[in-house]
Amino acid sequence: MLGLGAMGSALATALIDAGHAVTVWNRTPAKTAPLVARGAARAGDIDEALRAGQVIVTCLLDHTAVHDVLDDHAGALAGRTLVNVTNTTPEGSAELASWAACHGAEFLDGGIMAVPPQIGTPSAFVIYSGSEQALETARPALEAFGDVRYLGSDPSLAALQDLALLSGMYGMLGGILHAFALVRTGGITAREFAPVLREWLTSMAAWADSAAGRIDDGDHAGDVVSPLAMQAAAYDAFLTVARDRGVNPLLLEPLGQLLRRRTDDGHGHEDITGVIDDLTTTTTTTGDNA
Amino acid sequence: MLGLGAMGSALATALIDAGHAVTVWNRTPAKTAPLVARGAARAGDIDEALRAGQVIVTCLLDHTAVHDVLDDHAGALAGRTLVNVTNTTPEGSAELASWAACHGAEFLDGGIMAVPPQIGTPSAFVIYSGSEQALETARPALEAFGDVRYLGSDPSLAALQDLALLSGMYGMLGGILHAFALVRTGGITAREFAPVLREWLTSMAAWADSAAGRIDDGDHAGDVVSPLAMQAAAYDAFLTVARDRGVNPLLLEPLGQLLRRRTDDGHGHEDITGVIDDLTTTTTTTGDNA
Ligand SMILES: NC(=O)c1ccc[n+]([C@@H]2O[C@H](COP(=O)([O-])OP(=O)(O)OC[C@H]3O[C@@H](n4cnc5c(N)ncnc54)[C@H](OP(=O)(O)O)[C@@H]3O)[C@@H](O)[C@H]2O)c1
Ligand SMILES: NC(=O)c1ccc[n+]([C@@H]2O[C@H](COP(=O)([O-])OP(=O)(O)OC[C@H]3O[C@@H](n4cnc5c(N)ncnc54)[C@H](OP(=O)(O)O)[C@@H]3O)[C@@H](O)[C@H]2O)c1
Repeated sequence: MLGLGAMGSALATALIDAGHAVTVWNRTPAKTAPLVARGAARAGDIDEALRAGQVIVTCLLDHTAVHDVLDDHAGALAGRTLVNVTNTTPEGSAELASWAACHGAEFLDGGIMAVPPQIGTPSAFVIYSGSEQALETARPALEAFGDVRYLGSDPSLAALQDLALLSGMYGMLGGILHAFALVRTGGITAREFAPVLREWLTSMAAWADSAAGRIDDGDHAGDVVSPLAMQAAAYDAFLTVARDRGVNPLLLEPLGQLLRRRTDDGHGHEDITGVIDDLTTTTTTTGDNA
Repeated sequence: MLGLGAMGSALATALIDAGHAVTVWNRTPAKTAPLVARGAARAGDIDEALRAGQVIVTCLLDHTAVHDVLDDHAGALAGRTLVNVTNTTPEGSAELASWAACHGAEFLDGGIMAVPPQIGTPSAFVIYSGSEQALETARPALEAFGDVRYLGSDPSLAALQDLALLSGMYGMLGGILHAFALVRTGGITAREFAPVLREWLTSMAAWADSAAGRIDDGDHAGDVVSPLAMQAAAYDAFLTVARDRGVNPLLLEPLGQLLRRRTDDGHGHEDITGVIDDLTTTTTTTGDNA
């Protein structure tokens, strides 16, 4: 296990607690102490760490840090399995996969969908893509982190879906922050409002499933329950209420602009899903790798 | 029941199916036919509709439509209970409450947190505020619509929280649309991606609860797991990936700007919850009605 920041330490702890033999390394050696106290072996240097076991997990700051750590020790990778859970771009993951292959290692890229305190609990899941052989070799270890989700052999798939999941999350967090700011203007505390907001968002998350079919089929006009034009009008009204109450609606304004533009362009009778066409500036095909 | 659009018809149907005696009226009389066939009585005019029962429900297009329908017949309201589930602003609801009181009616305002097909199912809930006496009189009828949530006697509370819930939802929908556009660039269909996106958003909706305490207490610096500066850097990276892949990140850009501004202003060690201070242009107190 290379990298013992907040996340790497949580992963190493989960491995030890699940009964695996774990050797740890970190640039700043002091961070190994709590893990050694829990039962991990401490590698004296990177080479020793890489040669300590069959499965190597890197959890470092970023793509550059992974190369900083591994580049001078690539010889130790041959015949081993490298699992990188450092956050990288899809392109970065593809590059690491080629680099690892060139040094004789099986490569798996992972996106951790959890914060450190969730690691090893049922609420954590990790998405992986890359070598299926690497997945099978590493699986017993990976199961200690959280539910294992394999997305396919293209190594960039996990990074892309990780970014997309975070995008969805940040949209939701922005909506939550705006909502709390708005109710506060009526003297309603966030603690009071949070349970109903959480329940509502949980129920509306199901929209992802119902929207998916329309988006894949490009059919935004059939069986519409809430036409875009109606939503655009209501949207303007609620931006106005926010402004009148001293809440800057900047987080929600861009969607309102898209709703209005599409209504003006003659899509007012359609579903809101059609907005996706305004987000995509190039034409893409679905169903096969672009 | 006055107003038989998509929502009004669903509400009337739920009332009939729950065994209530229902009299219906709609500006365009043809829409009464399916409900009469199901067992409703048809009122010949507005006055007859208002005098038909103790509880009057209005479900019309907007605040103006409610006054259009009721103003010339206010005399029929005395001693009755008026439940308005037409979407209005908090100010509009407060105005209707005064108007109804002046004509001797008990007034309750409602915000329907459901689409018409959900009415009468366990996934529907309706938030109400206003006269508690109106709530108790109308409750047997209201229970046919969905779970009844009473927020307090200030009639504007339901409208304000309705708007805040919709804000949270639109933030999430924007995030979902961006996420689908992003995975599509890697040949991943929305149908494939929707289940994991839904699961992730459902789990992250719990953030509303954990953020609430920080927001109420104004404490954004204690026990931070993911510091703002780290999130701001990662955020920039994922906007870049979107752009490189031909996805316009306009729905997510404003939050990135706030994260960067707060980091530059020296809040980089804090939690993302502090962003709420940048949304609120006036100082408000929490815990009592402003
Ligand atoms: N924390 C989360 O909530 C979370 C969630 C999902 C994914 N992740 C991902 O997990 C990875 C690690 O995150 P973290 O929270 O553990 O970050 P962190 O606490 O900042 O730890 C960063 C780690 O990278 C090491 N490092 C940085 N630059 C290095 C270099 N040039 N050479 C060698 N080592 C270097 C650090 O070593 P030193 O100790 O010597 O500084 C430390 O071990 C990141 O890619 C992050 O995106 C984190
Ligand atoms: N549909 C939803 O998903 C949903 C969800 C939550 C809340 N709501 C709220 O429920 C209310 C009704 O929505 P809806 O979906 O039923 O809308 P709708 O299908 O457009 O129906 C509008 C209703 O208002 C009537 N109306 C409009 N202007 C009028 C006027 N000046 N005088 C008399 N009647 C008038 C219409 O009568 P005609 O038939 O004669 O046109 C019709 O009965 C709205 O406030 C909406 O925001 C809807």
